[in-house]
Amino acid sequence: MSGTVTEEDLGTRIEEALRHRFSERSAAAEKYGAEFVGLWRAAAQHALGGKLVRPRLLIDLLQSLSPSPLSERETACAIDVAAHVELLHFAFLLHDDVIDGDLTRRRGPNLIGALVAAHADTHVEPALHWARSSAILLGDMLLSSAVLGFARADVSADARERLLSLLEQTIFETVAGEHADVALSDGVIAPDLRTILATSTYKTATYSFVLPLRAAAVLAGSSPAAEEQLSEIGRHLGLAYQLQDDLLSVFGDPGQHGKDAYSDLREGKETAIIAYARMTAHWESIEVHFGRSELTVSEGSEARDRLRACGAESFVLGLIHEHLDAVSTALAAAESDGTLPAAAAQTIRAHASRVEGRRR
Amino acid sequence: MSGTVTEEDLGTRIEEALRHRFSERSAAAEKYGAEFVGLWRAAAQHALGGKLVRPRLLIDLLQSLSPSPLSERETACAIDVAAHVELLHFAFLLHDDVIDGDLTRRRGPNLIGALVAAHADTHVEPALHWARSSAILLGDMLLSSAVLGFARADVSADARERLLSLLEQTIFETVAGEHADVALSDGVIAPDLRTILATSTYKTATYSFVLPLRAAAVLAGSSPAAEEQLSEIGRHLGLAYQLQDDLLSVFGDPGQHGKDAYSDLREGKETAIIAYARMTAHWESIEVHFGRSELTVSEGSEARDRLRACGAESFVLGLIHEHLDAVSTALAAAESDGTLPAAAAQTIRAHASRVEGRRR
Repeated sequence: MSGTVTEEDLGTRIEEALRHRFSERSAAAEKYGAEFVGLWRAAAQHALGGKLVRPRLLIDLLQSLSPSPLSERETACAIDVAAHVELLHFAFLLHDDVIDGDLTRRRGPNLIGALVAAHADTHVEPALHWARSSAILLGDMLLSSAVLGFARADVSADARERLLSLLEQTIFETVAGEHADVALSDGVIAPDLRTILATSTYKTATYSFVLPLRAAAVLAGSSPAAEEQLSEIGRHLGLAYQLQDDLLSVFGDPGQHGKDAYSDLREGKETAIIAYARMTAHWESIEVHFGRSELTVSEGSEARDRLRACGAESFVLGLIHEHLDAVSTALAAAESDGTLPAAAAQTIRAHASRVEGRRR
Repeated sequence: MSGTVTEEDLGTRIEEALRHRFSERSAAAEKYGAEFVGLWRAAAQHALGGKLVRPRLLIDLLQSLSPSPLSERETACAIDVAAHVELLHFAFLLHDDVIDGDLTRRRGPNLIGALVAAHADTHVEPALHWARSSAILLGDMLLSSAVLGFARADVSADARERLLSLLEQTIFETVAGEHADVALSDGVIAPDLRTILATSTYKTATYSFVLPLRAAAVLAGSSPAAEEQLSEIGRHLGLAYQLQDDLLSVFGDPGQHGKDAYSDLREGKETAIIAYARMTAHWESIEVHFGRSELTVSEGSEARDRLRACGAESFVLGLIHEHLDAVSTALAAAESDGTLPAAAAQTIRAHASRVEGRRR
């Protein structure tokens, strides 16, 4: 039996591992009543069917770091760790949506929105409370599942401690980033560019890019030096990804990226685009539209045009290129000093080029 | 060097372990700014100084289960696991307070209330949002710390898997109980007595009593049969504890128990007392006071008198005795068939007698 995972069946195996996990939890939930089973079923619906960017990055890199094809046992372990990275992602999304008061994600209702809709017969306040409380509790279970998954990885004791310590740092830093993001939105700290870039790095890059890259290095038995290099690469790549996301929300085609047009502007999200615009003379004419929940599409277009005119779009595009250049430089260095094999550098380059060309 | 832990230094060592954990996290938080450090400092203030009921139960039982005094290494490991049980407790309290919208605990501000007060200069809504979001995020970190703590316990691989599986079940069941509690308060499920007793068991007994008892059994190397017996004992003991708590809130002396007088009535908390009262002819005269946030002390006293007159107090007292009797019966059986040593049974009896005599 060959243990090599091909591109086409990789997604299927990760998806299967997640599906198995959710159906096993739904079955265990039966003891506790229909509402709890309903929560797990809703969780499965909302957590499955994604692009699996994080687990794919982990496994792609692991394959290219390993000198020989992975055994079936190594593959199964990697799929399992990767699936738990996805559960962590979903746990963070849930608590993020509770904190931000969001009811939608990618134009459809998110889990909270779906639970509210399912209790449309009751009053709005209890239905919202019920839905948000459910999301807090589900997030708690998925977060603890992710840690348990790492703790049970079928690896040596040393590798397990490396994985646990990586996960511990990841959760700490992601929460620090989310906490800073809340501080920004509640006006507790000032929205300067440096703070916003650090917040994006901590909140998104750390768990979405650094974690999969370093976990792959641990599973491949790579050196701590390689892990260190991958941290730096992941931070740059993740920040470029988040900046691209910010650009798409304001300047992208909603028909392609699938979010509500101008939702970031409507919510008053403090992004690098806004931080730059605040420093220009155009800000006064943009500020009137910023954070207005009733922003119309034509007002949004006007704000977008002004954000373009003030130079915010090209500034952020420049930042993205800087960070992707930093990825290239770090990869070239790691390749030339032998910290990373050529195949691994190539895998990361392929993922980086997807960040740059991303339209959704 | 003697490794035996005496009653007087036990609390100190658990408290020290927790204090160490919080100061280490506060130091790590510095990289992420003053607000994040502030969150960790507030966490330490609110998490420390408790009665440490759960960790003490764990270590008391472990000592009496072990045929010989614990070595320093075993003691250190037990203190560490016990401290993580306390962190889990604090994580659950934080998310519980967010869900219930509580700003106080034992008459003082809870962590959320303290964070709101610290931002009294800003508007109420952002201050509340900031405080609640902070509590969600801190709870996430403490929850993951608890799982990491169990995963790193200095025990054999088998014992570690037993601990992890115990913790996994505990979190799942506690969250199921909390979810049912929210369903009760939002009117999603009916508040019948059977549902309320099951909810209390899942939400409180499982992590506060079953977890420490079974964790002690795992650390002592006791048989799975002993763990099973301790589960049953913990469920009865924990339910008796919760019912006693419910009685104190309505019938106890606020000067002693330290909570706001009649806070359960004011919040409309669905307890066994209320479930019983609903089935009596007195309910109509009690219902007018139930769940009224502006309930005065004299109205509270009136409701209390009616709850006494309808027989709810003696009914719940009877339930407490039944569950404590069930503890005694299970202990006697476990002692006579050799599942538990006499010293262990004695330790649990001592903890049970404290539940019965509890006034705060």
